[in-house]
Formats: sequence, C-alpha cells, structure tokens
Amino acid sequence: MNNASPIDVAWMRRAIELAARGIGSTHPNPVVGCVITGRDGHPVGEGYHEQAGGPHAEVNALRMAGPRARGGTAYVTLEPCNHTGRTGPCADALIEAGIGRVVYAVPDPNAQAAGGGEKLRTKDIQVDQGVLRAEAEEVNHVWLHSVRTGRPFVTWKFATTLDGRSAAPDRTSRWITGEAARADVHRKRAECDAIAVGTQTVLDDDPELTVRDEHDRPAGRQPLRVVVGDRDVPETARVRNDRAETLLLPTHDPNEVLRQLDDHQIRHLWLEGGPTLAAAFLRAGLVDQIVAYVAPALLGSGFSAVGDLGAESIDHLRRFTLADVTRLGDDVRLTLTPLGGK
Amino acid sequence: MNNASPIDVAWMRRAIELAARGIGSTHPNPVVGCVITGRDGHPVGEGYHEQAGGPHAEVNALRMAGPRARGGTAYVTLEPCNHTGRTGPCADALIEAGIGRVVYAVPDPNAQAAGGGEKLRTKDIQVDQGVLRAEAEEVNHVWLHSVRTGRPFVTWKFATTLDGRSAAPDRTSRWITGEAARADVHRKRAECDAIAVGTQTVLDDDPELTVRDEHDRPAGRQPLRVVVGDRDVPETARVRNDRAETLLLPTHDPNEVLRQLDDHQIRHLWLEGGPTLAAAFLRAGLVDQIVAYVAPALLGSGFSAVGDLGAESIDHLRRFTLADVTRLGDDVRLTLTPLGGK
Repeated sequence: MNNASPIDVAWMRRAIELAARGIGSTHPNPVVGCVITGRDGHPVGEGYHEQAGGPHAEVNALRMAGPRARGGTAYVTLEPCNHTGRTGPCADALIEAGIGRVVYAVPDPNAQAAGGGEKLRTKDIQVDQGVLRAEAEEVNHVWLHSVRTGRPFVTWKFATTLDGRSAAPDRTSRWITGEAARADVHRKRAECDAIAVGTQTVLDDDPELTVRDEHDRPAGRQPLRVVVGDRDVPETARVRNDRAETLLLPTHDPNEVLRQLDDHQIRHLWLEGGPTLAAAFLRAGLVDQIVAYVAPALLGSGFSAVGDLGAESIDHLRRFTLADVTRLGDDVRLTLTPLGGK
Repeated sequence: MNNASPIDVAWMRRAIELAARGIGSTHPNPVVGCVITGRDGHPVGEGYHEQAGGPHAEVNALRMAGPRARGGTAYVTLEPCNHTGRTGPCADALIEAGIGRVVYAVPDPNAQAAGGGEKLRTKDIQVDQGVLRAEAEEVNHVWLHSVRTGRPFVTWKFATTLDGRSAAPDRTSRWITGEAARADVHRKRAECDAIAVGTQTVLDDDPELTVRDEHDRPAGRQPLRVVVGDRDVPETARVRNDRAETLLLPTHDPNEVLRQLDDHQIRHLWLEGGPTLAAAFLRAGLVDQIVAYVAPALLGSGFSAVGDLGAESIDHLRRFTLADVTRLGDDVRLTLTPLGGK
C-alpha cells in the first residue's frame, strides 16, 4: 500500500510500538501489535502478543475495545492468523466482533497460519495490506527469517581485544570486556531462545549460559542451552545445572545443529563460540548477524575468536556491513550483518 | 588563575582557536595563538604561529594591531618566549609595542625559551597566567609532551580486521580498510613530523610513507620517513624516492629510535608497524596513543598488528583508555590513550 493515509500510518506505527514490547517473550511465535479504532475513528483498544500460549494481539485489543469495536478498523502488524493453535483464529475473532476494516502490514509467511486476510474478505470486511511493511518486518525480522528460511536466525557473539584475542595463551578470558558490555550480553541473550557453545568452551570456561541481571540473579524465562560437539560434557558442568534446559548436540555440522533447533522451534540462536564452532558456522554461510564487543586492550598472544576460514591472501577477506557502533562503558559493540542484506 | 573574568576566558578561547590552525605546520615549534585588545577592550589584532621559521603568534597579532596595541592586553596561549632563535624574543616585541597587560595560558616548559613572563613583569607589565590552561595544553599536547619528556610523542597506528588480522597468511594487506579510513590516515600523518616502519614492512608492502591527498598527489610538506631495523632496504624501495627525506635507523631499541629522532627535533612520531616494531614500543612503554582502524571483516588466519607482548594469562591484558570512537565510511576508528593519563 504505497499511498497509505496519514491516519493509517499513525495507527500502524502505534501497533508496531506495541509489537516491540513482546520481543524476547513470544518464542516461537512472532511479535504482533494491534490497535482498534471505533466507527468514529477514535482508538478504542490496543494490545500485543505478550507470550506464546497467551492471547494474540488482536484478541487483547478486542477485549479492551468491547462492543466499541463494531464497525471499526483493526490495525495489525501481521496478517491475522487463520488457524487454531493454543488459541482460536484471530480472523474469526475480528469477524465476530463486527470489525468493518482490517489493515495489516506484513502478510503471514507461515503456510499453516496464512489465509486470514482472504477469510476476512469473504465476510465483506475491507482488507488493506502493506502499511509500514518495512518497519513491521524489521520488528519481526528474526521470526520472519526463521519462517522463510526454515532455520533459526543466527547471531554470533564474541568479545575480543583490539588485537583480536578472545583468550590468553592459557585459555583464560575473564574478563576482556567490562561490566556494561557484559550486562548488554545478558540483555541480548534474553532476546534469543537458544544459546550455543562448543564443548571446548564448556571445558575451558564452564559457563552457565543463563540470562542474569546486574545482581547475577537468573531471569524468569531462560533460553535453551545448547552444547555442540562430540566431547563429553562433565556431569558437574554448570551448563547442566537446573536453571535452564540443556540440549547436547554431538555433531560438528552447523546445518545439523540448525535442523535440530528448528525441530525445537528455536527462532533465534545466540552463538557464543568458541573459534571452531564460529568458523564452522561462518564457512557454512550460516551467520546472520555478528555482535562483537571490542575492548581497548591488547594481549599480543592467545586465541582468536574465530578459527581458520581458509583465507590465504587478502582477497579472501570476508566483508560485512557495519550495521551499528555503540560505546558501552569502556568497550565498543560492533554489529555486523551480511553484505547486501540483513 | 582560577577566577578568570569572562572577558579573559573569551579572548583566550579565541587565541586557542587560532593556535589550532597551526597544527601540523609548526614542527618543531609549538602551536601558539594570540589576540590583542586595545585600551578600550575591543580586539585590534590576532595571529598565530603559522610555521617554523615564520613570525610567532604575538608578532603577527602586533602587526595587525599596529599602534592600537599600546596600553592594550595580549592574550597568548603559551608564555611569550624570551630567546632569540630565527626570530627575536616575543617578550621584547610586546614591551616595544607598549602592551599594558599580558595574559597567557601555559608557562613555557622549554628552559631555553622560558622567562618571558618574568621579563615582562620587570617592565611593569601586568602578567596573569593559567587562563584556560587545560584547553591550551590540549591543543599543544604533543609539543608539551615532547619538551617535558625529552622524546617524541608516539602514535601507533594500525588497521585490522575484527578478528585482529592486519595481514593475510601470504602477508598481503591491501586493503583491509576502505577509502574513508585511508584518507584519514593521510590527514593524521600530515599532523606528525615523522613516520616510522620496520624493515619487514618495507620488504612486504613497499610503502612510500608520504602524505597524499584523495587524488594521490603528495602534500607540500612531508614528514620525515624513518625505517627501523638491521635489514637492508633495497635501493629501489619507494621509501627511498625523492618525495620526502628518509632516515634509516639500524637498531631494534625503541629508546634509541626516539633518542635519534629527538636529535632531529621530531615532536610527533607516527608509528605504522609492523608487529615486531609495535611490540617493542609497547613493551618499552613508549606508545602514547593508539589509533586503530577496524574493518567489519574477518580473515580467520594471518598476522596480528602486534607481536608477542609476553602475555601468558588474561591477567597480563594491557588496558588503555578509550578516548574516541569514530565511524569512517564502513570502518571504525578507535583512539586509545594510556590508562590514567594522556
């Protein structure tokens, strides 16, 4: 919808704001926001999808609106679903409420849930789509990527000195970056639904791989912990404690890792290393985002964050788009995305 | 001077702005700016030290002011000199012009030139010092460092991938960073008076080590080129061409390098590597600033910008202060200074 009215744009923008509140809580579902305006154009309800298993955005907004929804317009960031999961189809809820017009930003790419727009049209509801589509795709880009490609979106995170050392020669690495950077890691872990490391990292660092706050208290919702590789994980390893679920994947094939995680409905994998695992994902072209925390420090020796990528000359340099640069305390966070895409 | 009047502060700020115009052109002299206000407090002259051998800031300002300087105030960023070099003492010039008051920001640390303030007082000129001293020190920090320590200020520059590679396994390194970063290197080279590399870098890259503009044309003033190390530099090496002077220093001792450069009145050394030379300077504690250009790219193998620093565990991490982060095109420039000082 190229010539959307300013009113449609304004309400869709609000719906996108609402959708964003669900980031990190709706896995394996998308984030969705909804605004309902009444017959006179004034807002009468709004809502968002708060967590998987809970009501969809449209249902929350309809509940707030009550009978005032009749003859009104529903603005939804994603095409209303047409399937019965843990909740009924949103298309039906909108029809029952007597909504006169539905405006949505992004068509549902999920074959299982799509068709909501079509069903609404058959009930003589005016349906418009594409308003603020780019912005609405952005807020949902992880979920859309996952549904469209059939595998989780992969973010590779590492911390490094300015000379590219992620661990000293004796494999110690705590801590290269400061508190602000480490707190940021926990915020970003919380937005994912799985955290993966290789067995070497478990043996070297014994990480717990949980999301914790600034007082080191674990968050209520914890991503799935994933340990990749053939080596045995000791029974006493912290990654095996009861603070979160853990999945051991005795493979070295990144495609196999993502296949298994897709079976677990993982949409966003947070890959923490080490170098062998990171190199395997990079070589397979399976890294969708890189988040690097760079400390203003030098080691001069030790281990890089990434293992051999097969580069022999500078012509083999792997370039990325620099999507963001943010200072975090004494450190700098660089966010990279693949060249020519996201 | 802790309670400087707003008027004194305003004119000194202007004098500092003027001083900054000389950065990169006054070696081996400091940058200096001067504003003269007449008897009625209105500005009547201003000037700065434009280049070594040319008139000092005070003389330029006095020339503009002419007879209107009589009974007025001179604001100078550095204590007026009291010695005859290629030009006469500025203290005398101020006395002859009939200046009634002199305000300066920073006392001259150079034993040879100091005493100007004292001489002015003996002529019943009111002398106040310390106005905006910190800002005035900042604009002159390279020269002040050099005079106070008796050795050049050393900036180590390197370009690196995000995984800390400054050259591929076959030693190729052109180009890791993009045009904006490389243009920035030339601007910063131009602010220094010597550029140093090790012999290995000459053999690997055959750099010209000149300052060039965006059309690859050499600048008028060129820093001294310095090649450090025992290995022979081929007669055909570009660093030996006639576009700038070249100094070969067959030593591996950074202290010896700086001693010799101090003899050549070098105030600011721009150290470009390679890893062995950089490590030697870092180990000797002789790096005053690090300028790193980080490309959003990975190699996975190759050479680091810095050689072994003797680190065995993370406790040996060398930390620096992150003084600046600037995005340059697709790359990021990080500027580091020693912890707890500059």
